[in-house]
Amino acid sequence: MIVEDLPEQVRQHVREARRKGLRVGCVPTMGALHQGHSSLIERAREECDFVVTTIFVNPTQFLPGEDYTRYPRTLESDLRCCADTGADLVFTPQTDHMYPDNAQTTVQPGKLAEVLEGVIRPGHFAGVTTIVAKLFAVTEPDAAYFGQKDFQQQLIIRQMVRDLKLPVEIVTCPIVRELDGLAMSSRNRYLSAGERSAAVELSRALAEASRLAAESTLDSLQISERMWSLLQSSGQLEVQYAVLADPETLEHPVQRTSGGRAVALIAARLGTTRLIDNELLRFS
Amino acid sequence: MIVEDLPEQVRQHVREARRKGLRVGCVPTMGALHQGHSSLIERAREECDFVVTTIFVNPTQFLPGEDYTRYPRTLESDLRCCADTGADLVFTPQTDHMYPDNAQTTVQPGKLAEVLEGVIRPGHFAGVTTIVAKLFAVTEPDAAYFGQKDFQQQLIIRQMVRDLKLPVEIVTCPIVRELDGLAMSSRNRYLSAGERSAAVELSRALAEASRLAAESTLDSLQISERMWSLLQSSGQLEVQYAVLADPETLEHPVQRTSGGRAVALIAARLGTTRLIDNELLRFS
Repeated sequence: MIVEDLPEQVRQHVREARRKGLRVGCVPTMGALHQGHSSLIERAREECDFVVTTIFVNPTQFLPGEDYTRYPRTLESDLRCCADTGADLVFTPQTDHMYPDNAQTTVQPGKLAEVLEGVIRPGHFAGVTTIVAKLFAVTEPDAAYFGQKDFQQQLIIRQMVRDLKLPVEIVTCPIVRELDGLAMSSRNRYLSAGERSAAVELSRALAEASRLAAESTLDSLQISERMWSLLQSSGQLEVQYAVLADPETLEHPVQRTSGGRAVALIAARLGTTRLIDNELLRFS
Repeated sequence: MIVEDLPEQVRQHVREARRKGLRVGCVPTMGALHQGHSSLIERAREECDFVVTTIFVNPTQFLPGEDYTRYPRTLESDLRCCADTGADLVFTPQTDHMYPDNAQTTVQPGKLAEVLEGVIRPGHFAGVTTIVAKLFAVTEPDAAYFGQKDFQQQLIIRQMVRDLKLPVEIVTCPIVRELDGLAMSSRNRYLSAGERSAAVELSRALAEASRLAAESTLDSLQISERMWSLLQSSGQLEVQYAVLADPETLEHPVQRTSGGRAVALIAARLGTTRLIDNELLRFS
């Protein structure tokens, strides 16, 4: 496995792979890798011949006051994880490789970034689209792998790829969960033991929403309210949103139609930690 | 010469060229081609093996009230020009190929776009960077050719390429002028006979600035004032700016230092037509 921190070196390795006719897959991460990330790398490994993982804690997607400085940086175990799951190349740029002095061009998402996470974390998604555009330009992948965990993010990246006509196929991979249902996240390690117990309420509320969509005749606002009250009843979660939205446009509330699809999306604070989770639903 | 209006077809042609090991050059234009454009295509022809010209009147770089609808569209003679100068492929997308319904992602330039043209035409350069990013994504060139005539534009595109790490070499080609010095422009055809005569004052003012930089000890503000008064004396030109700026950062006024470089930049209205011109200078 090659580990490179210089964009030009990475480009050369990828171009050499492509000259051999290999299909190139890219898995952009911020490190602190867990089984969710492993599943992305494994999927890339199945579908591509040359797998690049990028590890970069991207400063521009953190808002002032968020956890940029304390975000977990675990390079040694991350590299082990990449090697174990079969990455061919790991790109570990320094911050000033990706944002040299005087860097000023940004990629701005549109209205998909103005709801939900975009309201609570204004500017976050512009940081994401800007860095992902740069990482795609360096790694020139045929396919790139993102987790459904960050549902709005993968939609915005798909929109960016479509709008900017980038020659990359975006593959969204299922959420990987702990045994009790908690969606895996690098931020779970911030949770105290008590918070960790309460965190399971997110996936429980989503499961209940899924059940109500399939087995009741409640409309999407009523199902959202049911999620809210389940989350509130824990006494520890500060719910930021809990909605049923259109899985393409994120418009909400979504109309209940027989056989129609929706995505249930939750964000909640638990102490100083912020958790998000989601689940795709189908109305009966 | 291949003429294509579908991005996917263009991508296939270019990729086939690249598989053969050919160097790909791209010349993005808005059509209404003149000798300035020909010089770009010829330069691409010299330096590359497969030359793509794009012809697309980009709506997002025109402000409301500007000349988008009346911008000259001369596809037939443009294609003749491309064939005569040796383009291999001409990409002539429809507007909704480049901006489908719901397109929302943009590429935003930074502070280089906040001065000079950026003050007079707010949003113009975001339209330019967005379309050029898309055209680069479709044509995947090794090199792209722009005219020095749009001095600020080529600086902003260079900055975009550097910031987004796009694998494209930007080549800036000299301004091509009419016999009397007027910089060639698709908008020159808007000029009445009387305006056409007055238009020569732009290049005369630049020549005077160049002479003063080389032969006088005037500072850059004094030289700018001299340009202004020359332009004003025509009685027909409404000067928008006439400055000496740093040729990398566009900061102005620029300090006069022995052997130092600057760019003299002019924008002026002549009736309903807006003209720009520039010249690189060196202080004695």
